[in-house]
Amino acid sequence: MGKAMMMLCFLLAFIFQICILASAEVKHYDWDVEYMYWKPDCVEHLVMGINGKFPGPTIRAKAGDTVQVNLTNKLGTEGLVIHWHGIRQINTPWFDGTASISQCAIDVGESFVYNFTVDRAGTYFYHGHFGMQRSAGLYGSIVVDVADGEKEPFAYDGEVNLLLSDWWHESVHEQEVGLSSKPFRWIGEPQSILINGKGQYNCSLGAKFLNDSARSCSDTEMSPQCQPDIQSVDQNKTYRVRIASTTSLASISFVIGNHNMTLVEADGNYIQPVSVDSLNIYSGDTYSVLITTNQDPSTNYWISAYQIARKPPLPPPGLTILNYKPNPVSDTPLSPPPTSPEWNDFAGGKSFANKILALKSIPKPPTKSDRLNTQNTINGYVKWAINNVSLVLPTTPLIGSLKFGLKNAFDGKSPAEDFPATYDIMKPPVNPNSTYGNNLYNFDYNITIDVIIQNANILSANVSEVHPWHLHGHDFWVLGYGDGKFSEENDGKNLNLDNPPLRNTVVIFPHGWTAIRFVTDNPGVWPFHCHIEPHLHMGMGVVFAEAVDKIKTIPDGVLTCGLTAKNSGPVGGSSSGPPGAAVPTHYLLFIYAFYVIYSFI
Amino acid sequence: MGKAMMMLCFLLAFIFQICILASAEVKHYDWDVEYMYWKPDCVEHLVMGINGKFPGPTIRAKAGDTVQVNLTNKLGTEGLVIHWHGIRQINTPWFDGTASISQCAIDVGESFVYNFTVDRAGTYFYHGHFGMQRSAGLYGSIVVDVADGEKEPFAYDGEVNLLLSDWWHESVHEQEVGLSSKPFRWIGEPQSILINGKGQYNCSLGAKFLNDSARSCSDTEMSPQCQPDIQSVDQNKTYRVRIASTTSLASISFVIGNHNMTLVEADGNYIQPVSVDSLNIYSGDTYSVLITTNQDPSTNYWISAYQIARKPPLPPPGLTILNYKPNPVSDTPLSPPPTSPEWNDFAGGKSFANKILALKSIPKPPTKSDRLNTQNTINGYVKWAINNVSLVLPTTPLIGSLKFGLKNAFDGKSPAEDFPATYDIMKPPVNPNSTYGNNLYNFDYNITIDVIIQNANILSANVSEVHPWHLHGHDFWVLGYGDGKFSEENDGKNLNLDNPPLRNTVVIFPHGWTAIRFVTDNPGVWPFHCHIEPHLHMGMGVVFAEAVDKIKTIPDGVLTCGLTAKNSGPVGGSSSGPPGAAVPTHYLLFIYAFYVIYSFI
Repeated sequence: MGKAMMMLCFLLAFIFQICILASAEVKHYDWDVEYMYWKPDCVEHLVMGINGKFPGPTIRAKAGDTVQVNLTNKLGTEGLVIHWHGIRQINTPWFDGTASISQCAIDVGESFVYNFTVDRAGTYFYHGHFGMQRSAGLYGSIVVDVADGEKEPFAYDGEVNLLLSDWWHESVHEQEVGLSSKPFRWIGEPQSILINGKGQYNCSLGAKFLNDSARSCSDTEMSPQCQPDIQSVDQNKTYRVRIASTTSLASISFVIGNHNMTLVEADGNYIQPVSVDSLNIYSGDTYSVLITTNQDPSTNYWISAYQIARKPPLPPPGLTILNYKPNPVSDTPLSPPPTSPEWNDFAGGKSFANKILALKSIPKPPTKSDRLNTQNTINGYVKWAINNVSLVLPTTPLIGSLKFGLKNAFDGKSPAEDFPATYDIMKPPVNPNSTYGNNLYNFDYNITIDVIIQNANILSANVSEVHPWHLHGHDFWVLGYGDGKFSEENDGKNLNLDNPPLRNTVVIFPHGWTAIRFVTDNPGVWPFHCHIEPHLHMGMGVVFAEAVDKIKTIPDGVLTCGLTAKNSGPVGGSSSGPPGAAVPTHYLLFIYAFYVIYSFI
Repeated sequence: MGKAMMMLCFLLAFIFQICILASAEVKHYDWDVEYMYWKPDCVEHLVMGINGKFPGPTIRAKAGDTVQVNLTNKLGTEGLVIHWHGIRQINTPWFDGTASISQCAIDVGESFVYNFTVDRAGTYFYHGHFGMQRSAGLYGSIVVDVADGEKEPFAYDGEVNLLLSDWWHESVHEQEVGLSSKPFRWIGEPQSILINGKGQYNCSLGAKFLNDSARSCSDTEMSPQCQPDIQSVDQNKTYRVRIASTTSLASISFVIGNHNMTLVEADGNYIQPVSVDSLNIYSGDTYSVLITTNQDPSTNYWISAYQIARKPPLPPPGLTILNYKPNPVSDTPLSPPPTSPEWNDFAGGKSFANKILALKSIPKPPTKSDRLNTQNTINGYVKWAINNVSLVLPTTPLIGSLKFGLKNAFDGKSPAEDFPATYDIMKPPVNPNSTYGNNLYNFDYNITIDVIIQNANILSANVSEVHPWHLHGHDFWVLGYGDGKFSEENDGKNLNLDNPPLRNTVVIFPHGWTAIRFVTDNPGVWPFHCHIEPHLHMGMGVVFAEAVDKIKTIPDGVLTCGLTAKNSGPVGGSSSGPPGAAVPTHYLLFIYAFYVIYSFI
């Protein structure tokens, strides 16, 4: 290629970029958040609504667009933040929406403008990230389309957008207090599974197909607030069904009656198309599947969301209807809802997880990584602990404390580097005591981090649970899953470095491990935590402080509380860098998650 | 008297003062506030506790002492303040503990140190003053003894300390949302009346004396958390019974079986001793009565707290036992609990109110006052309105906005000076629309203010309710009560300028008026509001900004939110003085309180 030709190519590429940039828009939203009486499952309770709606409005934008959400706190006495789940907040770590980490909670009566770029097409969602406000109903969908001139690597004629959640009749305030009480009070299973914020408690849309005790919902109890969002489709078309799970606790088996699904997207990243009968969706996961409406057109079909992976009794499935036009939307499908897998079909869950592989266009992980070891310490109450430390968050947001070197604002203890090789993950912990801490790991810029999330036995014998772990600010490569204790020697060599999927949430199976890898190329302070909300409340998380010296000027309004408020002078001024021990360069992070009980009573 | 003698006298007086000052102590308290499961009336619900206790600890100090409370917010997602009811906060208006007025709510995880002088002996209490956190259980007693070397003007051998409150099974969060909803949802009557935080729901200590449906409380349901605080006394002694009412709604008729009471103190001020059979105690009132334990020593006696002044059905009385030692504490009194007055015995209430006259040592009011008139404007939802404006509070505390002249931080509309002479207070309002506002009145230093609180008819015909109005930062003289519409010509001449009691809380009777007077000698920003918590939540209050130019440097930590946080530079620096209209010098403030309903649906 001649020099002139190369110049022309560069020029064309440049113009193309300009075109894309020119087409990027600013999507502005004004949202008031307040409690309201609502009937998500036909039973009235308080929910946290946005602009008088539950769930909140869907954000729809194109890749490259700027999303601005002017959020006003109209709650009575509570603070507020919103996290934009799956949006990496590149260059805007202060808009990640995590209380105590990326910003101060927005005070009652105050407004705060989130302002970030949605840089990549995909299926995402947003939710509260202060206390357990997600579980109170503060959530909604985010759909990012490809930029103008770009194409998805698959074709479809229409879309169906489904947000899954679970719902309790006990208030979130009571749930929070119970989880922090001695004696410990577990929240129990949800009363209902909701699809797009709608479910039915104590009655069922599919009663006639279920057991004798099931009861059809009467017209009077079916308030418009709990009538299912009917999904109407044309015949013989291909639909992209977007599914996001913002459940507080429930893992979901998702099925569409009579329709095979082709998985094409996970957490905003393309995957190798694979046909499945059902999806195993854990809290924090998002997927797109393609379906073709080529079934018997004379009937409607069920869309079912079953809770799985926890011991029964579990709530009845969330149900909604795929309406084949022109059938009446109210027509009950002729076939019964698809059957649920066994709650403990973990083999099926693992098989499903292993089917998710990156599309070729997805970048591959670095083949070498830097590694770190950590070890155990001491504690009280019933808590989840990571390497024997249960996460508590400081009052002053870590992004500020770290940037301005406010060493008194948090616990700067560096997690230790050895892990006891003798730990038996199949048994309850020998030493059930642990400590509280900020679980803060400092990472240099542009290094490769591997995390082995090792699941252990809880305090009761022969019990280990599933936990979906979610990383903020990043996607990570899922290098593999395995049973039992991770062995560097055996398992370390068999990780998938060829086509591991990029994700932001990944499950760990009972008594198993999951290996992930990511590159610290996004300066910020990023929690990595179990996405089950009561588990996070009980301390199941860590925080990655990443290249803190490269965090740019934090905008006004982010740090209005704690020591950063009192020291607001230095905001945007001199930075003394993060405190704590010198940052090691070789990592293998073992994260042991287990129940810890110790009562002082 | 010779000059030398005078010098000696001065010297002695000076030394005496030094002695008093030297005996003043600092009483320091460390309090953690958090929700906990509790059984105030034997039924378990969340309550807001302090250091694991409900009600919170009693503050006991001597006049002249400094009280320091280091308050830590251990709530999940809610802010927090505490108001020290009856403490005038002379020179420390920023420690009055009112969110949006005297300070920012304390953030989750933060601590804030209240630091103030209790300058006068008396019976007081403290409570939350953000949202309806008082009703959630955030309260406790304050008892201030006379300074060393001083004497009370009455003698007694022992003390009994009683804090009255009311309790709902519906959470305060739900109550708040209901009150702010369309359609409006009233909280209803309390489920139980509590004495020192203890009551019994659905069973009664005095069941055997009550009607057939009353049931004795079983041993198993009588958790220690709801077993009455038995008040044990020796025979033939004089006791000072201190009673404070922090009810959210309930007006109380307080009776001690077989014992006459001699009223000696109201709201921290001495009154002319007067013998009464029962006390009418409205929310925000405190009293001391003397009783002599000279009754039949072979039995215990009931202490009963009946809800009155609202339409039945009302909850059963709060009951506790005056235990004559050495009778067993568990002995049921031989006589039935004293009977309740009729709920609507307003004549009795007025008679009781008029018995309260100042002791001679209490300073008299200025005989002349400066006066102001106000008028009506416009509104929506179901709200209480004062001169047709329903109180809403700004995000930035008024003390900061006013001191630093942040005119955008609040509604600076000056209430108008005329009141429509044609307003018929016996009928529902002709124009039921009103507006929201900060209801802010600016007062110069050292002027005399009269307020006529005029009670009007609510939206329903022939209904007007009692409202106890509480002023922060001051006592006021109660110049009189009257029926119907206040007439300057007739009523204005008959006010009591001779021995009006000094109080901080005063009731207005249905379709009646109450006249108060105070001198603006305490620079600060002081709410004046109905002490019924749901009524305040619905807007029944005003704010008096008093000699704002004389407010001294506001300490760090008070103004950490809103515009004062963003403008933290000027804190302690230059003050541009309060904004708003020029301050008039002649006032007669007519406050019309009535129901306003207007639905946009």
